[in-house]
Amino acid sequence: MVEARTLSGFRDRLPRETLIKHDIIEKVVRVFRSFGFAPIETPHLEYADILVKQGSEEIQKELYRFRDHGDRDVALRFDQTIPLARFISQHRSDITLPFKRYAIGNVFRGERAQKGRYREFTQCDFDFIGSDSIGSDAEIVQVIKESLYALLIKDFTILLNNRKIINGFASYLGLGDKIEDILRVVDKIEKIGIDRVKEELSLLEIESGKIEKIIEFVSQKGIGAEFFKSIECYKDFSEESKQGIEELEFLCEILSSLEIDKRHYKIDFSIARGLGYYTGIVYETLLDKQKDIGSICSGGRYDNLTQNFSKEKTSGVGASIGIDRLIAALEDDIEQKETPAIVLIIVLQKEFIKECYRVGEKLRSFGINTEVFPEALKAKKQFAYANKKGHCYTMPVGESEIKNGIFTIKNMKNGEQQEVSSIEDIAKIIKK
Amino acid sequence: MVEARTLSGFRDRLPRETLIKHDIIEKVVRVFRSFGFAPIETPHLEYADILVKQGSEEIQKELYRFRDHGDRDVALRFDQTIPLARFISQHRSDITLPFKRYAIGNVFRGERAQKGRYREFTQCDFDFIGSDSIGSDAEIVQVIKESLYALLIKDFTILLNNRKIINGFASYLGLGDKIEDILRVVDKIEKIGIDRVKEELSLLEIESGKIEKIIEFVSQKGIGAEFFKSIECYKDFSEESKQGIEELEFLCEILSSLEIDKRHYKIDFSIARGLGYYTGIVYETLLDKQKDIGSICSGGRYDNLTQNFSKEKTSGVGASIGIDRLIAALEDDIEQKETPAIVLIIVLQKEFIKECYRVGEKLRSFGINTEVFPEALKAKKQFAYANKKGHCYTMPVGESEIKNGIFTIKNMKNGEQQEVSSIEDIAKIIKK
Repeated sequence: MVEARTLSGFRDRLPRETLIKHDIIEKVVRVFRSFGFAPIETPHLEYADILVKQGSEEIQKELYRFRDHGDRDVALRFDQTIPLARFISQHRSDITLPFKRYAIGNVFRGERAQKGRYREFTQCDFDFIGSDSIGSDAEIVQVIKESLYALLIKDFTILLNNRKIINGFASYLGLGDKIEDILRVVDKIEKIGIDRVKEELSLLEIESGKIEKIIEFVSQKGIGAEFFKSIECYKDFSEESKQGIEELEFLCEILSSLEIDKRHYKIDFSIARGLGYYTGIVYETLLDKQKDIGSICSGGRYDNLTQNFSKEKTSGVGASIGIDRLIAALEDDIEQKETPAIVLIIVLQKEFIKECYRVGEKLRSFGINTEVFPEALKAKKQFAYANKKGHCYTMPVGESEIKNGIFTIKNMKNGEQQEVSSIEDIAKIIKK
Repeated sequence: MVEARTLSGFRDRLPRETLIKHDIIEKVVRVFRSFGFAPIETPHLEYADILVKQGSEEIQKELYRFRDHGDRDVALRFDQTIPLARFISQHRSDITLPFKRYAIGNVFRGERAQKGRYREFTQCDFDFIGSDSIGSDAEIVQVIKESLYALLIKDFTILLNNRKIINGFASYLGLGDKIEDILRVVDKIEKIGIDRVKEELSLLEIESGKIEKIIEFVSQKGIGAEFFKSIECYKDFSEESKQGIEELEFLCEILSSLEIDKRHYKIDFSIARGLGYYTGIVYETLLDKQKDIGSICSGGRYDNLTQNFSKEKTSGVGASIGIDRLIAALEDDIEQKETPAIVLIIVLQKEFIKECYRVGEKLRSFGINTEVFPEALKAKKQFAYANKKGHCYTMPVGESEIKNGIFTIKNMKNGEQQEVSSIEDIAKIIKK
């Protein structure tokens, strides 16, 4: 006998949670597709050298890496972006740019196990490859907005920044060589606060005058003509900063023309997105009432996605929706059910089980998800089953129902019962 | 520079194929749900001892097994049935029986690479746990039928058998101890033919008289009252055979009462399903016009799914849809597209790109999947892009369209163009 258990940091999803997860995915996929993003799939397992070159040292430690049967050095993917870069390079002759793809799949990171952090988790990425147009960046914002609206989430803010502004500003301060470290520290400002950021910056041997300027820089937040006027000064520091601000201006122009509610997006110079490959506009999305959950959709523009695999330059922009964070955010508002069935047919006599199956078939033909209890257990037990699983209606079927053609359906939420003389009418009541 | 490549036996799915795959999954999921099957998810990675005990020796050789960071002996799942058994045992107190679940996920087998066989592939399983009722077996047949109908497949036959009949018959012949080997050989009858089956049976040291009887037995196929009369004799051989035939009779009674077309199911005593855990009725499904593809949905009843993990007995019945075989079967009939977008908006002037995005937004609000080309490239190039990707309509938008409010949409299949004066009317034309 083996003990039934999952690995530390891994977990099962039971029907209740999986139904919520799949519902979220279905809705965001509908949005992705409405913009012309197409699905692709890549393997969970890759040659290790595909994955590790671009990954940080930390990622290397966390990699599930081993030798396969053919003594190949292989590893489980830890994100879907490097596999996308590999995919684009490998199939370059089969795909047409611009290439818009989404991918929903699991990735693996052997992080230290901690609450709410898993070693296998689902990523939901969408990327727009092969276009330099700021229109594509605007579309990413549109997709985020429409996805959240589809999930009935209306209180959120998409925070925008541009790595070019940061880079330009750092060069101006003569700190261009420390930019990666500065970004890493600044990225933590929400978590650790301004004072600790100052401390950490001074550990990088940055003089205090410059630290003050960095802090002033990362404190810039706002939207609208006035805000853009107030950050006009940063354009003077370098050509790169100027270009970065102008790109944000044009992005906001497009968003404004699309009549996206202004409370949904805001420039925030503290948004850095630690990852090395971003080079342009970057995004984070916070739920206004649940900021502690963290960003539920982040991403940005990259200049050269495929640099490890090909000499051809491939730029693009993409983002990733945090499915698990969304589940956490929505869980309390969503009806808790363990079944996708609406109706449970209660089997009253064993001799009439065939008729029960027929009634179930008929209800299904009217588009009603219907489960037939598989045995003629005591009715009480079958009702209890429906209560536990979350069926909205129950409908006992036995000799008298079949002979008289009159069925009783019970609303399991309010206990109301109704006598109905045709299956079609039952379907109508349920669909109301 | 690293060469962009996938591991041998692994592959990417490009948009064209992924769109077909996801379309198939969406349709079968709708059917699963209509019967009350709920989704669950289990990890791709498990403790190796969870997976290998029940697996055959062959599976052990094919297992992707390694030591993780914590020196745990882990492996990638090679099916979804053993993880289901582990799941049921582990969450026994959180789930209510009967438990109907589906699971669509990838599994890994380090088989020798060969055409059409992959080391990572998708399984689409549905199981009905905790019910001994033949009604549940009937429901599996119903689900197979409805799934194929949902995919517009109408020429198929579900082959039915019962392991009890085979077991009883083997005992009667005094070959009960060789039953596993006999099943393994008989299972290959379609592939290798009767003569080679005879040969292989004689290698098992079965005398020729008994071999003849086995061949006669496995040649029984048919449906309806007459057929059941013709196999009546097998009831006399053993109590187990008798029970097995009676179960099939009752199953067919339910299917007949459900008015499932009789050409869709047939008893076939040669169907054995090699896998060790089946103990009752077993299924295979062949496409009448593409039998060479093999069974596209197989399964059966098992008496004790969780025997390796728990003393509690858990019976059930389940089947698995072969997604890749279905893709192969359907590929030629399905429109080949690389995008889920219906319309491509052709951007005529850079200065009007904001307006193009607005038109796209408007079309989407009418439920039309719309892609906006991200740059004002030459119109010819944008048309070529639509041709390549498979957009059904193109719609050039520039200064004159915006100023006059008159748009031209082009049907990309027949080349027809139409002038339309409102976005709403365009949506109507497309939806027609």
